[in-house]
Amino acid sequence: MSQELLDFDVIILGSGPAGLQAAVHAARAKATVAVLGRMERSSLFKAHVENYCCMDTTLKGVDILEQGQRQAEKFGARFFSMDVVSMNRDEKGRFIIALESGEVLSAWAIILAMGISRNRLNVPGEKELLGKGVSYCVECDANFFRGETVIVVGDESAACSGALHLLLVADAVHLVYSDLKVDDRLRYQVEKSGIHLHPGSKVKAIMGTDGVTGVLLEDGQVIEGRGVFIELGAKGALELATKLGISLDPATMKYIETTKKQETNVQGVYAAGDICGPPWQMAKAVGEGCVAGMEAANYAKHERSKNT
Amino acid sequence: MSQELLDFDVIILGSGPAGLQAAVHAARAKATVAVLGRMERSSLFKAHVENYCCMDTTLKGVDILEQGQRQAEKFGARFFSMDVVSMNRDEKGRFIIALESGEVLSAWAIILAMGISRNRLNVPGEKELLGKGVSYCVECDANFFRGETVIVVGDESAACSGALHLLLVADAVHLVYSDLKVDDRLRYQVEKSGIHLHPGSKVKAIMGTDGVTGVLLEDGQVIEGRGVFIELGAKGALELATKLGISLDPATMKYIETTKKQETNVQGVYAAGDICGPPWQMAKAVGEGCVAGMEAANYAKHERSKNT
Repeated sequence: MSQELLDFDVIILGSGPAGLQAAVHAARAKATVAVLGRMERSSLFKAHVENYCCMDTTLKGVDILEQGQRQAEKFGARFFSMDVVSMNRDEKGRFIIALESGEVLSAWAIILAMGISRNRLNVPGEKELLGKGVSYCVECDANFFRGETVIVVGDESAACSGALHLLLVADAVHLVYSDLKVDDRLRYQVEKSGIHLHPGSKVKAIMGTDGVTGVLLEDGQVIEGRGVFIELGAKGALELATKLGISLDPATMKYIETTKKQETNVQGVYAAGDICGPPWQMAKAVGEGCVAGMEAANYAKHERSKNT
Repeated sequence: MSQELLDFDVIILGSGPAGLQAAVHAARAKATVAVLGRMERSSLFKAHVENYCCMDTTLKGVDILEQGQRQAEKFGARFFSMDVVSMNRDEKGRFIIALESGEVLSAWAIILAMGISRNRLNVPGEKELLGKGVSYCVECDANFFRGETVIVVGDESAACSGALHLLLVADAVHLVYSDLKVDDRLRYQVEKSGIHLHPGSKVKAIMGTDGVTGVLLEDGQVIEGRGVFIELGAKGALELATKLGISLDPATMKYIETTKKQETNVQGVYAAGDICGPPWQMAKAVGEGCVAGMEAANYAKHERSKNT
């Protein structure tokens, strides 16, 4: 039995800010657009945003995402809140994408906007208190902890520079690590900085019910604090890139490398947002999404007209 | 009499979305930030925005700009709504900027975010009806004219491709030009497209009081329509770039060339937004502003610590 294809110009993988902005711009350029992905997987879903221009209030991530979906739908984009089962290209270069529902979609261009997943501590309280004191992004969330005590967890430079940055905002900063893997200059800076150091330590649980109250270390010690920043790096796009033959940023070998037009090295494949590397900011994601959406729409319409 | 310097880490030239987002991110990175420029000069000032993620309503440009200024001020940025009289660098590499008020500011890094100015028709009604039917950006505003009759003015490819795009949205499209300066493929597309062509014509005035009702041509003919798109290209950053020794994009020689970190070829000088070239979209501007703000803040803090 042959499966009917749902035919689009552009398919966007990921429904965070990069994917939503790409959908708005591709749809307004009169491309037919599908957006795949579960909104609740966006790193924005449980976040609060106060640094996105030009909003003078603190916004809830889930509200932003829902408004963005309605906005993109208004311009004609269609949303599929489900996972991709397989992806192939046919002889004309079209992408053929099967969903877990059994539906099969085709498109002339795809945009990769699935974000990244931060490495987790995997301790009790981490998931429950995400957005209620637990954060994976000092750059994004430091300012929510003015005058508070905060705890940073991690062994590498992101944890150290995050802790140093928090010193400028927070009242007191604790750094929990087993063994610092950073260069001597940064180590020296951290040691003389006034950060409370907890070497050879591991977090056993994050404490709190409505909000973080502190962390419990494996040796039984409790550090009180209102914020816990987990800075253990991120899983990049390695698996996907290998599958599609997409080049990664040579400096990190983690993020997708693109041109300023958000093209990858594979024709018809664009990328936008966190998957292209830091800074992990909503503003950067929408900027890249805008360009990717417009470029992918142009490319797709051109390919379609060549093939009909 | 010596003038006291107002000392900053980062000075941002331009107070549109790129400059505002740069100010938010630089200030949140704990740099001291000044923003120079008159809000009413932003191309957003009289515009309406419906394509910026994730806003499910049409926003007025002036409201966006005012909210953005309050947001940036909340994080500590200081605004000077005035023009720059002169700019120099001292022996340490600091930028010394004199304002028309007589105040003199210094900074370790600057961000160029002054946008571009679209070429005008310079006819009666053009200025008065801006944002009320007169637009300089098909990409931005086409969707406001669903089912309407619109008039595009211009001789070059931007006018032709703009008119073709409007055909997908509007009910009828007129193209007013003296002599098309485009390649044969595009000319052929336009000629067979159903666009109403007015060769050898010049607009004498744009008609309407509360909104555009049509254009008056120099031969006395009136074309009725609700939208007038003036697509005469843009003045780029040539003058400024020459003065500062900044490289332009070699393809156009109009826009400032930057790395993905929004660095220009001159150390300490960053650029973001329309001044870096199309697409002229708010989302792209804030994306570049975000990166420029963070990078300039880091650079400035580093330079300051080297010099103290």
